Amino acid sequence: MTSVDVPVALLGYGTVGAAVKRLIDENGDDIERATGHRLRVVRALVRDPARARPAPPGPGVLTSGFGEIERDPSIKLVAEVMGGVEPAADYVLRLLHAGKPVVSANKQLIARRGAELFAAASREGVQLRFEASVCAAIPVIKVLREALVVNNVHRVLGIVNGTTNFVLTRMEDGADYAAALGEAQRLGYAEADPSDDVSGADAAAKMAILATIAFGSRVTLDDVICDGIQNVSRQHVTAAHELGMVVRLVGSASLVDGSVDVRVQPSLVDRHHPLAAVEGPFNAVMLQGETIREITLEGPGAGGQETASAVVADLVSIVGTSGTGFLQNDACWRTLARLPSGRLRSPFYLHVEVDDRPGVLARIADRLAAEQVSVARLTQRQSPSGASLDIVTHEAFSGEAEAALGTIQRLPEVHGRPTLMRVITERPL
Amino acid sequence: MTSVDVPVALLGYGTVGAAVKRLIDENGDDIERATGHRLRVVRALVRDPARARPAPPGPGVLTSGFGEIERDPSIKLVAEVMGGVEPAADYVLRLLHAGKPVVSANKQLIARRGAELFAAASREGVQLRFEASVCAAIPVIKVLREALVVNNVHRVLGIVNGTTNFVLTRMEDGADYAAALGEAQRLGYAEADPSDDVSGADAAAKMAILATIAFGSRVTLDDVICDGIQNVSRQHVTAAHELGMVVRLVGSASLVDGSVDVRVQPSLVDRHHPLAAVEGPFNAVMLQGETIREITLEGPGAGGQETASAVVADLVSIVGTSGTGFLQNDACWRTLARLPSGRLRSPFYLHVEVDDRPGVLARIADRLAAEQVSVARLTQRQSPSGASLDIVTHEAFSGEAEAALGTIQRLPEVHGRPTLMRVITERPL
Repeated sequence: MTSVDVPVALLGYGTVGAAVKRLIDENGDDIERATGHRLRVVRALVRDPARARPAPPGPGVLTSGFGEIERDPSIKLVAEVMGGVEPAADYVLRLLHAGKPVVSANKQLIARRGAELFAAASREGVQLRFEASVCAAIPVIKVLREALVVNNVHRVLGIVNGTTNFVLTRMEDGADYAAALGEAQRLGYAEADPSDDVSGADAAAKMAILATIAFGSRVTLDDVICDGIQNVSRQHVTAAHELGMVVRLVGSASLVDGSVDVRVQPSLVDRHHPLAAVEGPFNAVMLQGETIREITLEGPGAGGQETASAVVADLVSIVGTSGTGFLQNDACWRTLARLPSGRLRSPFYLHVEVDDRPGVLARIADRLAAEQVSVARLTQRQSPSGASLDIVTHEAFSGEAEAALGTIQRLPEVHGRPTLMRVITERPL
Repeated sequence: MTSVDVPVALLGYGTVGAAVKRLIDENGDDIERATGHRLRVVRALVRDPARARPAPPGPGVLTSGFGEIERDPSIKLVAEVMGGVEPAADYVLRLLHAGKPVVSANKQLIARRGAELFAAASREGVQLRFEASVCAAIPVIKVLREALVVNNVHRVLGIVNGTTNFVLTRMEDGADYAAALGEAQRLGYAEADPSDDVSGADAAAKMAILATIAFGSRVTLDDVICDGIQNVSRQHVTAAHELGMVVRLVGSASLVDGSVDVRVQPSLVDRHHPLAAVEGPFNAVMLQGETIREITLEGPGAGGQETASAVVADLVSIVGTSGTGFLQNDACWRTLARLPSGRLRSPFYLHVEVDDRPGVLARIADRLAAEQVSVARLTQRQSPSGASLDIVTHEAFSGEAEAALGTIQRLPEVHGRPTLMRVITERPL
């Protein structure tokens, strides 16, 4: 087969951009062998081409003029690795209009401006791929779009933020929240300002993208119910351990009777569940559908090289599918209702600190029963201020569990704020 | 986009074939939306078209004449779901020569005749895809070939046989080997004659295919070192548990200094390793490479529907990449040496039954040291016939560990046959 020359431009030349250039250079032969195409990075857009860089891309590659990329007809593919929503969105739209396929590693861009970008790609008949925007090198987008196209995935469960997973794993080893977060910062797993991670906002953007692709219907950031890990304490982690579970920040996207529910919340995960095995800064995504039952993908969810690997895989996939119409349509082909937030069913974990005197347990059980929430397991133990109760319920509507929580926390015997977390146990074997 | 009509033929119409037909019928709209192609099953080759079937494919579809498929120019794609090596190999070769892309679900066919089949596909410039031949719906072939094309995967670790994994998991719950195997047979996870599963032969065929694709070099069944689970006892499982590990039948393919090592052996897996979380009849494959570190894929590794799902995904991928040259070259582009069987390094687990008298431990330690094998952990306990030793070594060459085993089992103080298993712990974080 004759090899086709494929000039590639990069928007941005930071850690990811430089790694994309290196991977393409080092693996040009492998790519050519698999696809018959020779990729070459010929342009990289940066603010200041003159600035010193650890891995400069060679003479004449760096440019500060976007027009040189947009208007160069020889450039066949563009990878957006600059981050931020603007001007990235403007650039990507203009490239798509110019007929150039684009690969983006930009989670915020895809989560916030996806509707517009995909509509433009579909209209122009060019591909927009975005594997690197979710969980770096874990090929979950490819698997959802290309391997599971006939599988009607109805649930996606994910640990999609490495920072919070590292913190929760360290808390299992005995660290408290602040110490674990400090360690994550020292190791480079968390930013100096970790609020996007610990608040769940980063995970919410990824879950919005995953839900959109899995269900073929637009899900935006505003659709995602989101809680962070700021209020998870050592006590919860210890109680979970005694229940044979671990605490994880779980993203879940469910299709329930034709309605969508997407949320990111700290949850208890049964030790035998595949997500419980995800430790440290790793990510995992479990896809559930009738035909496949469940497929779990696990790996490093961040990192410059890992992200670059996903960008290059998307570039390779584009040259391998160009001209066939494959994946050129907007993947969002239907509109789905949003599940009312109280209508997602699952078991729940409830932690309550109470006065240690007769009748308290009965009153709490009574409040649960009043909301149709039934108790599966209960442990009561002494605590410095009285007694502490750890309760695991049978499956209940989240609205009922929250209503029960509300009445319980108003009981005079209850101290402080009780904790309610979802429990992830089911494994459809 | 105008839709392209794609008539499909099936070779075989058993459980998998009927499920392929059903998935294509039920998901025709989804496939058309994603790819612009409408798949239709128009022919299915069976021995006796007149026989009653639970899900007949509609009038005129069944045929006993292979020539009707081979010579029909309207048939664009063929799925081989008949099993067996002959006549499947002959049929697939003839279809490739006729210019028809083929999808195969046939592990034995690909493992035994892959060289010939891929060479024919490459020569004719048509695709031969085989996702369903390894771990059913887990898209490990797609991920290796399309998402990790630039990743230089150097190690593949897999639990690729559900029967043996079910048996080993049940043994953790207290069952002995025979009872666990009987239960697997009752539940349909094991055949009436389970020898292909328990001997490791089934896993060996899958590992040969995975190694071939991962390393880009032909690996045949004869290259795979293979041990089954027949000699794994409750005692090993209990000792593993006390060491914080589980016993699994692990397939491993490694590239060590340019040489290939592929083996299937019962191994101890650290509880924190992703493969330790694989329970019951599930499969998992971990891919390790420098850029991605490690990516693990887990899911059901068998089943009619699951296999059919992978077959349909391959059909969809072919229509999505036809005419581009993508994946039409033989994936085996280099020849690699075989690692001498004793030269794979790992920690090992050694179980020995001995007389309970002074000096025995020293003599065993001495034999290990003589072979450069150093002890990391050792537990000695009373046993009915004396004492039993459970030893975990530091990393050693497998040949040295086996040599030490040989001299140890010749010691007069040692009863019966000691056990040696590899230990899987490393997690390159």
